[in-house]
Amino acid sequence: MAKATQPAYVRVDAQAMKDLVARILERVDVPPDQAEIIADVLVRADLRGIESHGVQRLNTYYLNRLRAGRINPRTEVTIVHRAPGLAVLDANNGMGQVAGVRAMTMCLEMAEEVGMAAVLVRRSNHYGIAGYYAMMALPHDMIGISLTNTQPLVIPTYGRKRIIGTNAISVAAPAGAERPFVLDMATSVVPIGRIEVFSRRREKVPPHWGADETGKPTDDPDRILHGGGLFPLGGPAETSGYKGYGLSAVVDILCGVLAGAGFLTHVYPPGDPQGRPSNVGHFFAAIKISAVMPPAEFKARLDQFIRELKNSPKEEGQDRIFVAGEKEFEAEEERTRNGIPVNVAVLEEIRNNCRELGVAWPFPF
Amino acid sequence: MAKATQPAYVRVDAQAMKDLVARILERVDVPPDQAEIIADVLVRADLRGIESHGVQRLNTYYLNRLRAGRINPRTEVTIVHRAPGLAVLDANNGMGQVAGVRAMTMCLEMAEEVGMAAVLVRRSNHYGIAGYYAMMALPHDMIGISLTNTQPLVIPTYGRKRIIGTNAISVAAPAGAERPFVLDMATSVVPIGRIEVFSRRREKVPPHWGADETGKPTDDPDRILHGGGLFPLGGPAETSGYKGYGLSAVVDILCGVLAGAGFLTHVYPPGDPQGRPSNVGHFFAAIKISAVMPPAEFKARLDQFIRELKNSPKEEGQDRIFVAGEKEFEAEEERTRNGIPVNVAVLEEIRNNCRELGVAWPFPF
Repeated sequence: MAKATQPAYVRVDAQAMKDLVARILERVDVPPDQAEIIADVLVRADLRGIESHGVQRLNTYYLNRLRAGRINPRTEVTIVHRAPGLAVLDANNGMGQVAGVRAMTMCLEMAEEVGMAAVLVRRSNHYGIAGYYAMMALPHDMIGISLTNTQPLVIPTYGRKRIIGTNAISVAAPAGAERPFVLDMATSVVPIGRIEVFSRRREKVPPHWGADETGKPTDDPDRILHGGGLFPLGGPAETSGYKGYGLSAVVDILCGVLAGAGFLTHVYPPGDPQGRPSNVGHFFAAIKISAVMPPAEFKARLDQFIRELKNSPKEEGQDRIFVAGEKEFEAEEERTRNGIPVNVAVLEEIRNNCRELGVAWPFPF
Repeated sequence: MAKATQPAYVRVDAQAMKDLVARILERVDVPPDQAEIIADVLVRADLRGIESHGVQRLNTYYLNRLRAGRINPRTEVTIVHRAPGLAVLDANNGMGQVAGVRAMTMCLEMAEEVGMAAVLVRRSNHYGIAGYYAMMALPHDMIGISLTNTQPLVIPTYGRKRIIGTNAISVAAPAGAERPFVLDMATSVVPIGRIEVFSRRREKVPPHWGADETGKPTDDPDRILHGGGLFPLGGPAETSGYKGYGLSAVVDILCGVLAGAGFLTHVYPPGDPQGRPSNVGHFFAAIKISAVMPPAEFKARLDQFIRELKNSPKEEGQDRIFVAGEKEFEAEEERTRNGIPVNVAVLEEIRNNCRELGVAWPFPF
């Protein structure tokens, strides 16, 4: 048993959890096919070990807002502009996952025709893990790209106010014998949730994760959380944090400024006290490998790339070099067999949802 | 006067230096129109304050290899594949600058037709500053993207060998009243040249710039230079260096694996003792803004984005927040007026080139 001070986890079958989340969403007027998509994106995060974007967010990011009528439960995606290689969609304040799958599906079709394409989405909401959409390109022998902006949590270099998002970048490329390459990262050093964990444990954070209320690096998680903010990838200026800040800005320019969505402080958090639409923006792109070389050749080359990295000499005390996505695929394989670990407090929250919405609780515990 | 231990610089008129570099290149069989392009890219780096990619590289990166017959002086770019939105070019071991301008020009034409396009280049050489090509999109009201891989100088997370490049990322977007946004960055914390400067001055480097021969962070520049290597953006694993490593890998997958160029240790340095072709790869992309919204609207939105960042509260002790490209545009304005600062040792090297190749020395000093 876990110690009382540690969160206790229960292993839950992924498919059963997916079905349950879909049933709950249907009760708040999400159409069944859309509920399936949202549940799949959420549980995929838990499968891949990215619990911060999994079912623990069901209430705070989605259900509370759906029940309060602040996200449209029926996501109707409309096409605003469409060129052969570039389109813009309006998610009409619907669910980000539904808009994301719709946009990436369209992007793959367009790339099939012209070789490369991008689809932008405005007026959306939090879409979960960026990697979900990038990975949709893999079975089509394409390289997938997925970017999103987020609520502002990051301090720009030489600033001291949270004004830009943890804006995410994901790129997925298919390999042959090796697992696909899947980068899925925020452009901050760490997510805000990591700082919260250190705060709860009353531990110091490593330097360069965040700044205090004056904009200086601090090891005190509470000063980062209250008055300060996250550093962009790279940390302070001395260690080139302006590069992470620049990358975060690129994501916001594509997803916010160009897509016609919110940007900087005009992207509102899921828990916005005024209940304003988040107006999140996304950017998806796909590159058709067969327009460049036979996919089998590309995959053999990517296998070689991955193996040469992994077989490279190791840092003293380390026995393994990882390639982006590798840990997540290993987690997915293990958790598909053994279930996803869900915090008991999160489970209790979901059980309450079931009681309130009249959904049968499918688990024996 | 500068102290004897400091490098002494002379201000040289940018146009005069450009003409001189072009004349020198013509003497080693570079066609005049191509020599103009190469000289423009090199001097533009000096104008923008990126001397590490300016005329100081004329000999080591280009002229030595051209004179040794290891780069084709007449760059003949051939089209390998072409779809409406995606093309692959072969630079046939010609000059990277000529291939880059050709590829980006083609990319802009393709994006004009289909909205977004990408052009990849294989069998190229060092192309100078990535930003030069991204900025070519600006007068066309497009967003430009320019990526290149490089010789391996960076250690992957948990590794201890230089196996991946400082692979560069540039993104340029046009603003209205404000200067354009131009991110132009390597995916390492700092360039190797910065470590060399600290070594010459016998100073320690800040932590997290590089690793020693065991893969651990060190403040000793000589251990980074001899046996160790650069950290990817983010530094060691604790401060999320695996994200910079992942971004570097993305650039190498697009420019090397996909383009059909070299990747990892198969990109050979300009000073390769065996004189092998570098086989550098590039990736260019362009997004046509008018396919999404009127360019004037985009520029007004980008102006707002830039101003809100710059007007954000400052870190204690700082009075200015910069946006990517801002410092470089200011340098360009000042240096266009007052000349580019060229190290006297570099000037002497170029004067020697003139003597050996029979080019008249145009300067009074």
